Amino acid sequence: MTPEDQRRLDELYARFSELRPRSIGYPCNQTFDYAPLFRFLEFSSNNLGDPFAGSNYRLNTHQFEREAVEQFARYAQAPEGDWWGYVTNGGTEGNMYGLYVARELHPNGMVYFSEDTHYSVAKILRLQHTRNIMIKSQPNGQLDYDDLRETLRIHRDVPPIIFANIGSTMTGAVDDLAKIREILEDLAIGEHYIHADCALSGMILPFVEKPQPWNFAHGADSISISGHKFLGCPLPCGIALAKKHNVDRIARSVEYVGALDTTISGSRSAITPLMMWYRLRELGDHGIRQLVQRCLGLAVYAVEKLRSAGIEAWRHDENSVTVVFPRPPESLREKWVIAPKKKIGHLITLPPMNEAVIDEFVSDFTAALKA
Amino acid sequence: MTPEDQRRLDELYARFSELRPRSIGYPCNQTFDYAPLFRFLEFSSNNLGDPFAGSNYRLNTHQFEREAVEQFARYAQAPEGDWWGYVTNGGTEGNMYGLYVARELHPNGMVYFSEDTHYSVAKILRLQHTRNIMIKSQPNGQLDYDDLRETLRIHRDVPPIIFANIGSTMTGAVDDLAKIREILEDLAIGEHYIHADCALSGMILPFVEKPQPWNFAHGADSISISGHKFLGCPLPCGIALAKKHNVDRIARSVEYVGALDTTISGSRSAITPLMMWYRLRELGDHGIRQLVQRCLGLAVYAVEKLRSAGIEAWRHDENSVTVVFPRPPESLREKWVIAPKKKIGHLITLPPMNEAVIDEFVSDFTAALKA
Amino acid sequence: MTPEDQRRLDELYARFSELRPRSIGYPCNQTFDYAPLFRFLEFSSNNLGDPFAGSNYRLNTHQFEREAVEQFARYAQAPEGDWWGYVTNGGTEGNMYGLYVARELHPNGMVYFSEDTHYSVAKILRLQHTRNIMIKSQPNGQLDYDDLRETLRIHRDVPPIIFANIGSTMTGAVDDLAKIREILEDLAIGEHYIHADCALSGMILPFVEKPQPWNFAHGADSISISGHKFLGCPLPCGIALAKKHNVDRIARSVEYVGALDTTISGSRSAITPLMMWYRLRELGDHGIRQLVQRCLGLAVYAVEKLRSAGIEAWRHDENSVTVVFPRPPESLREKWVIAPKKKIGHLITLPPMNEAVIDEFVSDFTAALKA
Amino acid sequence: MTPEDQRRLDELYARFSELRPRSIGYPCNQTFDYAPLFRFLEFSSNNLGDPFAGSNYRLNTHQFEREAVEQFARYAQAPEGDWWGYVTNGGTEGNMYGLYVARELHPNGMVYFSEDTHYSVAKILRLQHTRNIMIKSQPNGQLDYDDLRETLRIHRDVPPIIFANIGSTMTGAVDDLAKIREILEDLAIGEHYIHADCALSGMILPFVEKPQPWNFAHGADSISISGHKFLGCPLPCGIALAKKHNVDRIARSVEYVGALDTTISGSRSAITPLMMWYRLRELGDHGIRQLVQRCLGLAVYAVEKLRSAGIEAWRHDENSVTVVFPRPPESLREKWVIAPKKKIGHLITLPPMNEAVIDEFVSDFTAALKA
Repeated sequence: MTPEDQRRLDELYARFSELRPRSIGYPCNQTFDYAPLFRFLEFSSNNLGDPFAGSNYRLNTHQFEREAVEQFARYAQAPEGDWWGYVTNGGTEGNMYGLYVARELHPNGMVYFSEDTHYSVAKILRLQHTRNIMIKSQPNGQLDYDDLRETLRIHRDVPPIIFANIGSTMTGAVDDLAKIREILEDLAIGEHYIHADCALSGMILPFVEKPQPWNFAHGADSISISGHKFLGCPLPCGIALAKKHNVDRIARSVEYVGALDTTISGSRSAITPLMMWYRLRELGDHGIRQLVQRCLGLAVYAVEKLRSAGIEAWRHDENSVTVVFPRPPESLREKWVIAPKKKIGHLITLPPMNEAVIDEFVSDFTAALKA
Repeated sequence: MTPEDQRRLDELYARFSELRPRSIGYPCNQTFDYAPLFRFLEFSSNNLGDPFAGSNYRLNTHQFEREAVEQFARYAQAPEGDWWGYVTNGGTEGNMYGLYVARELHPNGMVYFSEDTHYSVAKILRLQHTRNIMIKSQPNGQLDYDDLRETLRIHRDVPPIIFANIGSTMTGAVDDLAKIREILEDLAIGEHYIHADCALSGMILPFVEKPQPWNFAHGADSISISGHKFLGCPLPCGIALAKKHNVDRIARSVEYVGALDTTISGSRSAITPLMMWYRLRELGDHGIRQLVQRCLGLAVYAVEKLRSAGIEAWRHDENSVTVVFPRPPESLREKWVIAPKKKIGHLITLPPMNEAVIDEFVSDFTAALKA
Repeated sequence: MTPEDQRRLDELYARFSELRPRSIGYPCNQTFDYAPLFRFLEFSSNNLGDPFAGSNYRLNTHQFEREAVEQFARYAQAPEGDWWGYVTNGGTEGNMYGLYVARELHPNGMVYFSEDTHYSVAKILRLQHTRNIMIKSQPNGQLDYDDLRETLRIHRDVPPIIFANIGSTMTGAVDDLAKIREILEDLAIGEHYIHADCALSGMILPFVEKPQPWNFAHGADSISISGHKFLGCPLPCGIALAKKHNVDRIARSVEYVGALDTTISGSRSAITPLMMWYRLRELGDHGIRQLVQRCLGLAVYAVEKLRSAGIEAWRHDENSVTVVFPRPPESLREKWVIAPKKKIGHLITLPPMNEAVIDEFVSDFTAALKA
Repeated sequence: MTPEDQRRLDELYARFSELRPRSIGYPCNQTFDYAPLFRFLEFSSNNLGDPFAGSNYRLNTHQFEREAVEQFARYAQAPEGDWWGYVTNGGTEGNMYGLYVARELHPNGMVYFSEDTHYSVAKILRLQHTRNIMIKSQPNGQLDYDDLRETLRIHRDVPPIIFANIGSTMTGAVDDLAKIREILEDLAIGEHYIHADCALSGMILPFVEKPQPWNFAHGADSISISGHKFLGCPLPCGIALAKKHNVDRIARSVEYVGALDTTISGSRSAITPLMMWYRLRELGDHGIRQLVQRCLGLAVYAVEKLRSAGIEAWRHDENSVTVVFPRPPESLREKWVIAPKKKIGHLITLPPMNEAVIDEFVSDFTAALKA
């Protein structure tokens, strides 16, 4: 390491510190402290394989991973004794896992997903060579159910695989699992699969009073939740959950090709499961619930503040921490890390956001509009 | 965190400390110190997207990632101005990337890989729905070139995608790229693709005197190298490298589906690229070369020591740090973390291994055989 | 045979004797006497092959089979000189035969069947790899013709294969062949195939005054009738009937693969055709007609008796021997062998049922409701 | 029943009595007495569904079926705790079941079967829409292993489903499972399926001193044995056996379509399972072994007798009860029920055959040759 290298690292640290409170457009809780776990970064640990199956490589944290995954399974109302899961490298791997299970169960199945779905899903479907149809979205970001119904009707001869957003990246829209199932029933489609991408809202809905239907109890067959979003984590990670009897079926089919497990990544971090475990212990259900209430409260505040400044802000519903507004002037992006798309922008009310940050943002926004 | 939780973490740390020197069967350098980078774990950083394309999310380490990837590209003799790459979550993602590029270029291509190939590759091929044929291996773990030639001859109507091991998991065998290209030429197969899985040896061969043909200069079209193996890293990671004009073609095709980049993972760790960058700076080419020599010296020592104890140990060739021996008695696995498969076992001479560890292992091995 | 084995057989006989009058939920006439044919069970007879084509294996009853099948063809108004058939192992084989003929004639045809169709049909379609769509049912168990029409409209590019229930397992619903043909005509769909599953009603409708359209004369291209249901037989059996020119076309295509006949089973019982022949001779058209009247009379009685006890019983129409009622309490199943499904139960008024049995059942039903 | 009908039945009985000892070309033991079970033909019994899963229809013999199937599983060395089976309507259904399981496991699999395979198999493959290739036979009726090897080599990209004859219809040839597996291993084909059609020899090989490799222990994944062949039964029946974990996988996939079981026939005879149970009890292992020895002794006698009359008779091997000879003059078929094909004829030395019958046949054969 040269002094120049050292200087660059210091500069990076300074830049990160400065950007943190202004990164309001990204759905990541940035307030956490995993320092007590840093000592485990001295080792070349690895959680390769199925966390529930034991491993020859003993520098693993499979026990902690199991406990963390179990807790997420509880939040997602996974069927008692018929679920399986693991800690992934992030939301993409969780969605890939769900869509992989679906495609193996229904080799000629057709995937349906809304326009508002994150672009990585189309990438996965291309990678996996799975037939798919993009469904129109409603202006609020939800699936257009009429389009879904008509499109399903046309393809009733192949099993549908529904990819549902819980909620969508841009507007936090939650696709209505009850409505989706009603359509499937109406069309007498018995064979189907529902994957729920619960990246952000998967950690919010278990803790609100009136959650939308979103999880296994409401018809999902697999679920992907991000670990670094609502809970916060310096390393991207996620949780993939699926019904055990479906996973078992895949497991037997990959056995033929000599595979020992169904996880997508081979070597897997032993640190992120430990972080998830630690974070869940640290917060507890009570702590998460408080955090959810605080974030929702801030979202209400942000909508009001923006609206009183004449900016047409809105939320998809009362359970959403995503505050949507018309695309702001480009100049606003010099200071604020936001991610506008087409005609809209948004902010996500996760820590370290607070009322002061919102006030400052709205003030800058108003000024930019006038300029 | 309860005192009980604290106790469990302490116990985990103690167990890891104890296991480290005995984890001799896994190809991971366990001697490193990334403590100077721990402060970056305070942030919710993310390297999502193409490291060479810029990102809206400014808490990234793309600049460091580019520099690290560039260095690996140099080691792999990537074609000047025609390479691209990124830091992955590990070897699986790197292999998936190479096979994905290959399949997009040759949609009806056939993948060939040897029996000795890691099982994750068959899993990837299943996930990607790519046609494939497993080729016999020679007893030393290399591809059986006669079988490859005969099988290619039968399928000359579809472009071959050769998956080459540099080197294999169990015996460190390096598939001979020169031989493979000779066969392709003999059969007048013009359209083909070669992906090289250089998990471990990709960091050894650039630093030995007489490397086998293994990289872009020898015919590889894409390469996967593990970051946590030879260099060592507490978080599994790897480097995916491919020819830029091929990646550009894919980029155009995923654009159609609305995708903005071709990386497989969406959210990507900003920490592992920083660690790779740091490690390369810390060691420098000179340091890596010394490390390679030290490991190869230890491998020579281990073979001799085992043989003089009457155990038929061998290495695939003089560039291999994998020491192969007959499958040891199960009792040996109580103390030593090794990973025997079928009739063989192996040890990998990476730090913190030293002569004393080898002596102790050979002594335990001999005793177990007598018991 | 040990005395214990003997005891077990005696016990089985006693159990069967006791259960017979209480097995009211299954559509099988249990009153018959085939004792005069038992002597043929001394031989290893076999009706393998086409009953109309002659066989090398001379211990067959092909002559009797032809006569029996001919009589069923007459009942089903099969086109003079253009029908063919054989005695199968039961209804499944008859449906499989019809759907096989249909798929061979229309290799890319799409099968349509109602929600109320027996589950074995979906199993056959999966076995045969035939594309299919499940159509909604009306509450009475018939096809929802609106859904059928809309679904056909969408798939007008592939020939429809309609699977019609004559009548359905649970409610005895008879899909309306006239209506189905009207829809096909309305949509100008010239190429189509209709298979009628006449398991139970195929022996009732030829003998009632106002039969629904159900057979070859009304558009069916193939028909499956069960032998052990209305007529009664100790061994499950059925009759497969199809248009000869269609069967001939298949015969020519299986000749290519070296097959000598188109029957699905190879070795076929020589006893069940003999039993069918015997039963038809014994009853005669007159006897069957009387039996039909008696059963329909009992069905009227059962509906009235149940209704007067306050139980909302109904029949699909006046030709049905299936008496439907709300799902009874589980306790009723201790004594009575019934087969409730979802919200309904039913009884079938076939021998040895009589008014006394009905009275006893209604009395038990009422008591169970009060408990 | 008219007196004419009665006369026809009497005539049939007389013809059957006369033909029985002369039906020497068919592989059916014709000596049995099931009279003690005739009383069960008074009932409308039915074994519908999975014999191991229980049934709502209580007039079944599932318990006896389980015991019979278990005994066959033992003979076929089915893997402890990982087998499943049921009594079918004959060999065709057993083969259909095995090929169905195979196709569901390997949807794009390719079936390989020898020229000497019974024509019903090609019919099944057509019905099931499964890709297949007919392999040449050796003159003795076994698979031509060179052709198998070369054909497999060409199609290494799709999982092979090998249909093995144990033994073949015409010459009693037993395809060598050890050889087949060796070829698969040589070609590094990991994913494969072997179905063994053990129609006749499946009841012989468990009782000889040096059986060829033929069952689960030797690599079979499913097995079909005929009940009416070696054991003898007036009603065609058979036993389908498969590995339970494979059946479970199918079971889950048919669940989607609302199916409750994986048996191919819906209504299934309750009588044939009872007969199989009775026959196994009556004979016991000891009795079957004696019967096997008697039949093999007669086969030796028949070969010698024919050869000493100048007729080039042979058996496939010492475990075969099929005696092959050059196609006899057509005139011989007036008296003897034999089934010549192309250039050969055969007789099967099952009861009631004895030395006197053989002597008479050889004498007639010689006379016919001279005529």
